Amino acid sequence: MSRAFNFSAGPATLPEPVLRQVQQELLEWKGERASVMEVSHRGQAFIDCAAAAERDLRDLMAIPDDYHVLFLQGGATTLAALLPLNLAGPGQSADFVITGHWGEKALENARPSLHAHIAASSHDGGYTSVPARESWRLTPGAAFVHYTPNETIHGVEFHDIPDVGDVPLVADVSSNILSRPIDVRRFGVLYGGAQKNLGPAGLSLAIIRKDLLGRHGRDLPPIFDLANQANNDSMFNTPPTFAWYMLGLVLQWVRAEGGAAAMGERNGRKAALLYSAIDGSGGYYRNPVAPAARSRMNVPFFLPDPALDKPFLTEAVAAGLLGLKGHRALGGMRASIYNAMPEAGVQALVDFMADFSRRNG
Amino acid sequence: MSRAFNFSAGPATLPEPVLRQVQQELLEWKGERASVMEVSHRGQAFIDCAAAAERDLRDLMAIPDDYHVLFLQGGATTLAALLPLNLAGPGQSADFVITGHWGEKALENARPSLHAHIAASSHDGGYTSVPARESWRLTPGAAFVHYTPNETIHGVEFHDIPDVGDVPLVADVSSNILSRPIDVRRFGVLYGGAQKNLGPAGLSLAIIRKDLLGRHGRDLPPIFDLANQANNDSMFNTPPTFAWYMLGLVLQWVRAEGGAAAMGERNGRKAALLYSAIDGSGGYYRNPVAPAARSRMNVPFFLPDPALDKPFLTEAVAAGLLGLKGHRALGGMRASIYNAMPEAGVQALVDFMADFSRRNG
Repeated sequence: MSRAFNFSAGPATLPEPVLRQVQQELLEWKGERASVMEVSHRGQAFIDCAAAAERDLRDLMAIPDDYHVLFLQGGATTLAALLPLNLAGPGQSADFVITGHWGEKALENARPSLHAHIAASSHDGGYTSVPARESWRLTPGAAFVHYTPNETIHGVEFHDIPDVGDVPLVADVSSNILSRPIDVRRFGVLYGGAQKNLGPAGLSLAIIRKDLLGRHGRDLPPIFDLANQANNDSMFNTPPTFAWYMLGLVLQWVRAEGGAAAMGERNGRKAALLYSAIDGSGGYYRNPVAPAARSRMNVPFFLPDPALDKPFLTEAVAAGLLGLKGHRALGGMRASIYNAMPEAGVQALVDFMADFSRRNG
Repeated sequence: MSRAFNFSAGPATLPEPVLRQVQQELLEWKGERASVMEVSHRGQAFIDCAAAAERDLRDLMAIPDDYHVLFLQGGATTLAALLPLNLAGPGQSADFVITGHWGEKALENARPSLHAHIAASSHDGGYTSVPARESWRLTPGAAFVHYTPNETIHGVEFHDIPDVGDVPLVADVSSNILSRPIDVRRFGVLYGGAQKNLGPAGLSLAIIRKDLLGRHGRDLPPIFDLANQANNDSMFNTPPTFAWYMLGLVLQWVRAEGGAAAMGERNGRKAALLYSAIDGSGGYYRNPVAPAARSRMNVPFFLPDPALDKPFLTEAVAAGLLGLKGHRALGGMRASIYNAMPEAGVQALVDFMADFSRRNG
């Protein structure tokens, strides 16, 4: 056996050089005579490792000094519940723009904590587009506007940052962080789980403009107050040290590969190759998303007959192409082509797709 | 270099055979042609792995069927905030018995969500004992009674389970879970972080009597409602898959070593050896905890002069004994001797202590 191309949506494929380094130093890390998993998060070796990861992320994303970078647990969903508690008082409103499953979930997790208002939604079109900015009905005085720049399940991505004036823009970037350069200054908060572009599951990130914390006026459990994590270098309680260390290694790999700009170019080529294969299949493969809103990270596609799904998946695995089954909410196929998916993997997929359609046309 | 004996309080030492297996299968797990970190938590391979871990924990702790076993993120502190929201309505009371730092933290994280009442505390004695059950002032109709069977920083442990009648007993067992057999039926909830006796940091456990969930009557964000995790096999959102997998391997190791009873016997011998060395040092080493409340997991001790702390720690590291620095709240030394610390490690420590005291008497 050998490693295959893994198109899973998250947990997702990781850079092989990172895995090899983890393997090599698993029992003895950096002269510590222990695994990185076994050393105290309060010891100098881990503090240095954690700080290097933050520094690399700040460099790679050009994160300004007036933003906190928090390393947390619980995934994007927990942050979808915590951010409303931290960014708004109990009587305040917040606007939500919904373009898929994760936007819906963010709304559900915010609703108990504030007046949550749907400013725009592409639900009626089956989440195959992004609502034009002119159509958004924003609430005057809203604490923030929340949206999901890339929807992993529906394969819908904003390719520009919407202008919402002075209201803090809050974005779940779980699935497209570091997939291209982004202007952090346009946001109040960028947050997400690590398990797609940054590392293993079990770590989440929040990049928060500093003035937004500590103003909620709520009586929160201290562990729910993100200001406590900000004031304690994300070590208000024991952090997920191994996941943090791995995220640091992935960031070093991104840097060695050329940074966010190089990732953006490569991801653009990968997505173009795959969408061309779909659109050029004479209707055999179908992606329902409006071309201007197609995701460069998650590409759902459908075969002419659902009865072909099973043979497609079985033969794909035999061809060394894993994790292509679509989300149960949509069916069909989905190829997630995050940073760590090499161009050779996408080429192998489109070759297989062409061959399969010839044999099953 | 080679691996040393690591007495860190958590993250803590892990069984070396477990680390070797992780290392060996890090890039290709079980014929999956991918790392365990890279496969979907919804795929059959990971579902089987997760279910095996739960089954092994249920076996090892004899957890009855009417208890949920939840695998979560956020550590014990997040659970200290979530459990009050899940176990009590907003107007209800809960009782807290405080025997150290973690009991204080649990109280702080509960206070915003209910009427938190200190039923007993050994604070005035500097947390060197456990308050006699007869002295507890329990609140009639309390939703639960919370205590910390082992206090990691103060080195104080309950050696019996207190009787609180029909009120659910909620215990933070982060630092002593599986360190000996325990009668789960005596508890409403057992919870804790994994990073001491069970695995790496980034995973927490909650063993909850089923009838206690879903009764809070609060409007909670869905991700805060533990019933949702219970109803989704702890996969209501993406779980920390790698930490869960590692916990499963640690449980297999515990089973191979003879289970909770064998762990209890070994831990008893390790603690007896270390306390004997302290008590038999003619007053050179000192542990302030009342003998009946001394922890078998975390042993704080003090040298005759704090000026000796630095040379003690430096020489200990040179002797292959790591992580002995006491918590900053107490100073001095602390040896954490969890399940994965072999008896040879404690023997090496007491030999070093005897040698050090001879040379610095």
